[in-house]
Amino acid sequence: MQTDYDLIVLGGGIAGMTAAIYAARANLNTLLLEQRVCGGLVNTTHVVENFPSYPSINGMDLMEKVRDHVDALGVTICEVVEIESLDLEGETKCFTTDEGRFCAPATVLATGRKPKTLPLETDCEQIHYCAICDGSAYTGKDVIVVGGGNSGVDESLYLLSLGVNRIVVVEEFDRLLASEKACRQLQARSNVEIMTSTRITRIRSNERLETVTLQNTVDETTIEKPADGVFVYIGQAPQTDLFHGQIELDGDGYIPVNADMQTSAAGVFAAGDVIQKRYRQITTAMGDATVAALSAVGYLNENRGCRT
Amino acid sequence: MQTDYDLIVLGGGIAGMTAAIYAARANLNTLLLEQRVCGGLVNTTHVVENFPSYPSINGMDLMEKVRDHVDALGVTICEVVEIESLDLEGETKCFTTDEGRFCAPATVLATGRKPKTLPLETDCEQIHYCAICDGSAYTGKDVIVVGGGNSGVDESLYLLSLGVNRIVVVEEFDRLLASEKACRQLQARSNVEIMTSTRITRIRSNERLETVTLQNTVDETTIEKPADGVFVYIGQAPQTDLFHGQIELDGDGYIPVNADMQTSAAGVFAAGDVIQKRYRQITTAMGDATVAALSAVGYLNENRGCRT
Repeated sequence: MQTDYDLIVLGGGIAGMTAAIYAARANLNTLLLEQRVCGGLVNTTHVVENFPSYPSINGMDLMEKVRDHVDALGVTICEVVEIESLDLEGETKCFTTDEGRFCAPATVLATGRKPKTLPLETDCEQIHYCAICDGSAYTGKDVIVVGGGNSGVDESLYLLSLGVNRIVVVEEFDRLLASEKACRQLQARSNVEIMTSTRITRIRSNERLETVTLQNTVDETTIEKPADGVFVYIGQAPQTDLFHGQIELDGDGYIPVNADMQTSAAGVFAAGDVIQKRYRQITTAMGDATVAALSAVGYLNENRGCRT
Repeated sequence: MQTDYDLIVLGGGIAGMTAAIYAARANLNTLLLEQRVCGGLVNTTHVVENFPSYPSINGMDLMEKVRDHVDALGVTICEVVEIESLDLEGETKCFTTDEGRFCAPATVLATGRKPKTLPLETDCEQIHYCAICDGSAYTGKDVIVVGGGNSGVDESLYLLSLGVNRIVVVEEFDRLLASEKACRQLQARSNVEIMTSTRITRIRSNERLETVTLQNTVDETTIEKPADGVFVYIGQAPQTDLFHGQIELDGDGYIPVNADMQTSAAGVFAAGDVIQKRYRQITTAMGDATVAALSAVGYLNENRGCRT
């Protein structure tokens, strides 16, 4: 496998794949590295209704189309690869992986975010972070959903559509934080119990999950609820552990960029959910990935003379 | 027809339609006003190859899909409407049109750009700005293309694919300014003459176009070339004439915005090719249209209390 490229894109979600499309169209010899399989967070979205031109499409189906687009342009895709270390500070950016060492004079970081994990010590296997991935095992069973924001409420509705028997939605705030419409849909279901001002404090398991302990945040009383599974939606964290000490990160771990999607290191651009910004949508990821790729093209042209 | 909305989007290109999609999904009662038909500049693009998920799609076909998406969300679309005047400075933004007067507390301006016209006085009907729209009339005929940038070269190749007999490409600079690959494709064609350091100075017509006068910019010698039609690609100008005096514009007529796509007037947001920015792509238009729509939602919530 070739080891030197014009551009290495790290991350195969919508941002990384869009950057790869623009880079390939600008004739950059492009490598896309992805630790799992391409598709990113959209893969875990049951129905996407805000990608212009598709009134409604399954997230995985949409990402497969984008992946086909990237393939058609001749981008080298290396999936299920472990990034062991990387060097972003030198003139050449290098990524050491279990598949070999890959280098390029410029890179686009598009590693996105991953769900925050439950702050409890447990090795219980019935703790999940993706209803689309793992929900189908809970048809006819009882489930606890932790988090009453948009994700928690939407995923609860999705679990109900799979035929889950009963859901308890647990939210630390004194109300659900999802959209009015989704909240009303959930509240209308007779097999859903919504517990606000409540946190999860303990998981009891014996081979399989048995009960969870829920604590009222006001009077600190606790109850035990039996459950077959727990789905957790308590927010997302940027995947930037690998970048610490090499590029500037903000207090929450996000990458600050300028209007050209340039990070604090020359030749290192970033795009998508991993950057510091206000709105994290598929469309905004495509927008900043385009800018990141075109800025990388400009950077390479400046630094190496016009490629022919 | 209803006259009061939550949000009025001005312009039905990819930016305006994306803003309408996001606004409708946030339950805003949304009106989209478009002076011609929806689709914008993409409608005039023969093949779009950089809209993620479509390796290759006709521009008009793509915009029809986006239009169907907007329709499916219940947005009121008012096309082929003349905007006679508008008021962006008051608390309520009002648009007076030949179809009536429409008002909303917030607006997204997405009027895009239009081709710059030839700086010559002529009423000749064989001067065109869109090969896709008007090229088919020139099969077997001789054509002058003014402008040797990406548009001029790409559109020349498109005209050749329609079976145009002969093309003279005229460029004021001393070389073509399009991508290397496109230039090479054009230079390889035996029925294409490329005249750099050349400007067009006169159009001679008698009911139909007869000849154009071309002047060498170095020695100022002129020649007359017979031609059946002229296609002009000398750049784009923002469509902001209506906004003069109401919101801040830059020296070239573009709208400066902050990171939330907010213009200088409260409640007035802007997105797409009409704003001051570096890269004007379909994906970047979708990105900033999303931000503009979500910022408008936030503005309305702040200013009117949470809608239910």
